[in-house]
Amino acid sequence: MNSFGKIFKVTLFGESHGVCVGVVINGCPEGIRLDEQFFAHDLSRRKSGVTGTTMRNEIDLPDIISGVYNGFTTGAPISLLFRNQDVNSSDYMQINHFPRPAHADFVALKKYCGFADPRGGGHFSGRLTVALTAAGVIAKEIIKPAQITAELIEANGSIDIKKQVKKAAQQKDSIGGLIDCRITKLPVGEGEPFFDGLESVISHTVFAIPGIKAIAFGSGFRAASMKGSKHNDMIINEIGTTKTNHAGGINGGISNGNEIYFLVAVKPTPSIGLPQHTFNFSTKMMDILYIEGRHDVCFALRIPPVVEAATAIALADLWLRK
Amino acid sequence: MNSFGKIFKVTLFGESHGVCVGVVINGCPEGIRLDEQFFAHDLSRRKSGVTGTTMRNEIDLPDIISGVYNGFTTGAPISLLFRNQDVNSSDYMQINHFPRPAHADFVALKKYCGFADPRGGGHFSGRLTVALTAAGVIAKEIIKPAQITAELIEANGSIDIKKQVKKAAQQKDSIGGLIDCRITKLPVGEGEPFFDGLESVISHTVFAIPGIKAIAFGSGFRAASMKGSKHNDMIINEIGTTKTNHAGGINGGISNGNEIYFLVAVKPTPSIGLPQHTFNFSTKMMDILYIEGRHDVCFALRIPPVVEAATAIALADLWLRK
Amino acid sequence: MNSFGKIFKVTLFGESHGVCVGVVINGCPEGIRLDEQFFAHDLSRRKSGVTGTTMRNEIDLPDIISGVYNGFTTGAPISLLFRNQDVNSSDYMQINHFPRPAHADFVALKKYCGFADPRGGGHFSGRLTVALTAAGVIAKEIIKPAQITAELIEANGSIDIKKQVKKAAQQKDSIGGLIDCRITKLPVGEGEPFFDGLESVISHTVFAIPGIKAIAFGSGFRAASMKGSKHNDMIINEIGTTKTNHAGGINGGISNGNEIYFLVAVKPTPSIGLPQHTFNFSTKMMDILYIEGRHDVCFALRIPPVVEAATAIALADLWLRK
Amino acid sequence: MNSFGKIFKVTLFGESHGVCVGVVINGCPEGIRLDEQFFAHDLSRRKSGVTGTTMRNEIDLPDIISGVYNGFTTGAPISLLFRNQDVNSSDYMQINHFPRPAHADFVALKKYCGFADPRGGGHFSGRLTVALTAAGVIAKEIIKPAQITAELIEANGSIDIKKQVKKAAQQKDSIGGLIDCRITKLPVGEGEPFFDGLESVISHTVFAIPGIKAIAFGSGFRAASMKGSKHNDMIINEIGTTKTNHAGGINGGISNGNEIYFLVAVKPTPSIGLPQHTFNFSTKMMDILYIEGRHDVCFALRIPPVVEAATAIALADLWLRK
Repeated sequence: MNSFGKIFKVTLFGESHGVCVGVVINGCPEGIRLDEQFFAHDLSRRKSGVTGTTMRNEIDLPDIISGVYNGFTTGAPISLLFRNQDVNSSDYMQINHFPRPAHADFVALKKYCGFADPRGGGHFSGRLTVALTAAGVIAKEIIKPAQITAELIEANGSIDIKKQVKKAAQQKDSIGGLIDCRITKLPVGEGEPFFDGLESVISHTVFAIPGIKAIAFGSGFRAASMKGSKHNDMIINEIGTTKTNHAGGINGGISNGNEIYFLVAVKPTPSIGLPQHTFNFSTKMMDILYIEGRHDVCFALRIPPVVEAATAIALADLWLRK
Repeated sequence: MNSFGKIFKVTLFGESHGVCVGVVINGCPEGIRLDEQFFAHDLSRRKSGVTGTTMRNEIDLPDIISGVYNGFTTGAPISLLFRNQDVNSSDYMQINHFPRPAHADFVALKKYCGFADPRGGGHFSGRLTVALTAAGVIAKEIIKPAQITAELIEANGSIDIKKQVKKAAQQKDSIGGLIDCRITKLPVGEGEPFFDGLESVISHTVFAIPGIKAIAFGSGFRAASMKGSKHNDMIINEIGTTKTNHAGGINGGISNGNEIYFLVAVKPTPSIGLPQHTFNFSTKMMDILYIEGRHDVCFALRIPPVVEAATAIALADLWLRK
Repeated sequence: MNSFGKIFKVTLFGESHGVCVGVVINGCPEGIRLDEQFFAHDLSRRKSGVTGTTMRNEIDLPDIISGVYNGFTTGAPISLLFRNQDVNSSDYMQINHFPRPAHADFVALKKYCGFADPRGGGHFSGRLTVALTAAGVIAKEIIKPAQITAELIEANGSIDIKKQVKKAAQQKDSIGGLIDCRITKLPVGEGEPFFDGLESVISHTVFAIPGIKAIAFGSGFRAASMKGSKHNDMIINEIGTTKTNHAGGINGGISNGNEIYFLVAVKPTPSIGLPQHTFNFSTKMMDILYIEGRHDVCFALRIPPVVEAATAIALADLWLRK
Repeated sequence: MNSFGKIFKVTLFGESHGVCVGVVINGCPEGIRLDEQFFAHDLSRRKSGVTGTTMRNEIDLPDIISGVYNGFTTGAPISLLFRNQDVNSSDYMQINHFPRPAHADFVALKKYCGFADPRGGGHFSGRLTVALTAAGVIAKEIIKPAQITAELIEANGSIDIKKQVKKAAQQKDSIGGLIDCRITKLPVGEGEPFFDGLESVISHTVFAIPGIKAIAFGSGFRAASMKGSKHNDMIINEIGTTKTNHAGGINGGISNGNEIYFLVAVKPTPSIGLPQHTFNFSTKMMDILYIEGRHDVCFALRIPPVVEAATAIALADLWLRK
């Protein structure tokens, strides 16, 4: 059931070491300018190769295989394919009897009764976020002039991010990170009360990104230790601008016209170079697992465009209901 | 669009000062024992009247108006009604020209072009959580033997909760709180990869509760400053038990058989007894707003059964897909 | 799963001899004028009491219990309740061991393992079409200026409808009927290719009406024996008017601006005064069933406003996607 | 919004003369044996090349690009691609200014404001039924042991089908046909009351097939002219077998264990060799349209496996809810 949305409906498919990963977008309006290059900016931000990220080398521009004609969306379903070209599955053949800690190997094995594709995490791979990011590129066009900007503001608890990555790489370890995301120019009135409130739909799509552990809107966890007299955002003019913005731009699940902002915690990359002591399902004993292959030291570095995409997809679906 | 679920579909309706609030549950299996008293336990936990919560006095047992016959669910849609019996709307008539800070008054006015029912927050009122809680009572039956337990562990940043409430009441102020929620006995394999992962659907329904600002699964925001070698949960036996549980019982969006736990931040009650300086849309000037009426000092006290309900609804919908 | 729609979402609930039947409508725009009397016209067309229909006497105006304020829809979910006031269940107590032919008694018993409410057909009762009709009244407002008109054009195969009804009543038998439905002023472009084509969504909601056996758009079954040179509708002007209208106003699932029309077959009322030879599940032998109670001779007489409502619901959901 | 299903979710994409057509299937259980050859039987039944059908020569076996591993479904989304290899678009370049009668050319142009891909009907092309048929092949596996069999029983109103096709071909005309579809071994209890009744969901998917004009379950239109005493199907034993089967195996939207059967009318192929008098949007005058290209004389010949597929998809989605 890997799909999201009622009107702008996004379906992800594919496996890390299969033929491809891809996405079908249903309900995208016609007339949006679109070609392969259109995706280049966000996909390169997500791309592997920069310091601290995996050496896997994918071209990462989609084949547009439906829904676009003469450079514009047609209103028909849009399908984007990313061929897997740099695949080396031999690294992963042991997954089903020696599941990697903090990966989905064990749950995939159990949930799908041994039928899941284990190679490189199969359908659970972070590789699918390339397709998610591409869908977000289209979603961003729909919600214009609203704009979404995410950035990594901390890694391993420190703002000196490069240093942290370098150090962790030397230690054959991995580190987590903290992402700040802001939505500007979103009109008053986006979102629905209760089940389709902005926090509900944004958190829904953001937690679809592998490795996200927490999300906090506006004052976030600080709200729990605040008083109402301090937390309440006083309205100061007719367009609803507030003096403070503890609400993070959302009241009752609905945008109030102020900046929306939220923080997202990304866990450290589960694959690390260090040996790990974990259960071996073949021998039925604890054992030392060595993960070879190629891995991000800090995959949080690549997540900002993915958070933007997830957010844009959530907003586009609400946006098109009007 | 106030509904959630694909199989176990919950739709909330009603207004704070209208005839009633209620819920329709579509897709509930037949044969579950159910009568009005069945709801008493969770509804009384949510109930007003205890120290620090509003004086509003509702009987708060639902009328079961469809879907139950001879004390058992029939498989047809279940409808529950909560009549509003203790309504005093005169307190709220100024809402549209003098919106209360941190409430949905302003966004409701704008979103619905002046047609929203403003009395007591209308459809945005926390009153609707009584219906949400009742739906959760049914959902909890479906997911047995899995069990969900939420409790308020801090208010105003302190574990001495009663004292904080008392002090805030004396100050005519309000305070926020921190809720801990745990799911036990959930089998391995619940949840779907990406868009219908457990974190996605649980956060979706939990953020549907008014006043929630943040959610953190497992290690939560601490994950952002941790190393992989520390964060990775080593598997220690054949059923997938892990030595640590930073994952919070979820990998790749799927339950791994360990306890699921998450923290939820509840903001302080927006209605406070203290005067507030905010914009008056009649005079188009800043003005002093006095909120009379009845309010919770710490509505977080009432939220644990609502968090349990929201979680149970999310799980029941996944559960019934199998 | 008794609900329909992605944007204009209609959920039916209730049982024939329970407290009430009702409907929740999610996604209705704000600002539509609405009060109880607003439903009177269509509900009286559907009403019992006219010759050939059951003597059951219901007031049949809904209680509006949410979503309307000061006479206008608010944008929040609208709930309508029809109390069951003239219920006599003693007639129906034998249903579970002596299921009535052509009713849902047998399938309800099996599907819900004996838990279904059997009284008067329970949730399967035609009584629920009162709620469907009311939802249609609101849907009709949304799709204005498009208009839907259905009428019974034949009963028992004859256009002399009154005579047929009278004769069947004398014979303690029942008769079926043929309904013609037309949609005018629907703009070009409603409907989606393939799965959400107009025929797909209209037939979906129309077959939700108990007792409908067939639907035919435009040339209908005659198309099967026609040649392309005859069946093709030549376009004669810039707005797409066609010389003939074998397409019934729909091409590729999309409205083409011409009148949409379709025929619907309604089966004879399954409950008849004549004794029926059928299986008795108590004695496990064939037996004679006498149905007392009150029944329509020709319930097709009451179905035109229900067909209009079903059609309007389908169109409103497509309409609001734009 | 070209998708169907709540649990077994099918999304079609692609254009007649684009890169490919395809389908993504979400929610298919793991462990179903599947390879390219698996689709050969139904796809060859739908295939072009037989007498009376178009000369377009497509290989018509899908590339399985996700969701299958080692010859079995994995539980992840399944994507199937059909490359368009025999495309000749020059025939179709005039479509936007000279829309073909009985095609979707005119509505596509208007609905998508000129952005739709016009080549060969673009996304509206019957070519997409190859993907629909492939999805049906998988759906059929899910609903086993239930079986669906459709066949063309008349063309141009006659059971001598070959003769009719030959004659129409000589006349450069086209003919419609009548398809009979039967479902056997479906257990009692499939379908939901009202909106998700079997007739509703089957007609929904069957009308998604281009060119279907009517559907009739059981007694169909004959029901409209029958009496209850004749139409009612007497139950004759404990498993619910009925003496007659006017209900077509469905009561209250639910399967009753008897054979389900329905008739479907297919219109004559809209593209014919004969010249057609229709409106030219360039000259804004009536004009003679000559359609060259390759066309089916009687595309109804190819529709039986597509009807089976549409039916199987509807049933699989209901089936998996249990």
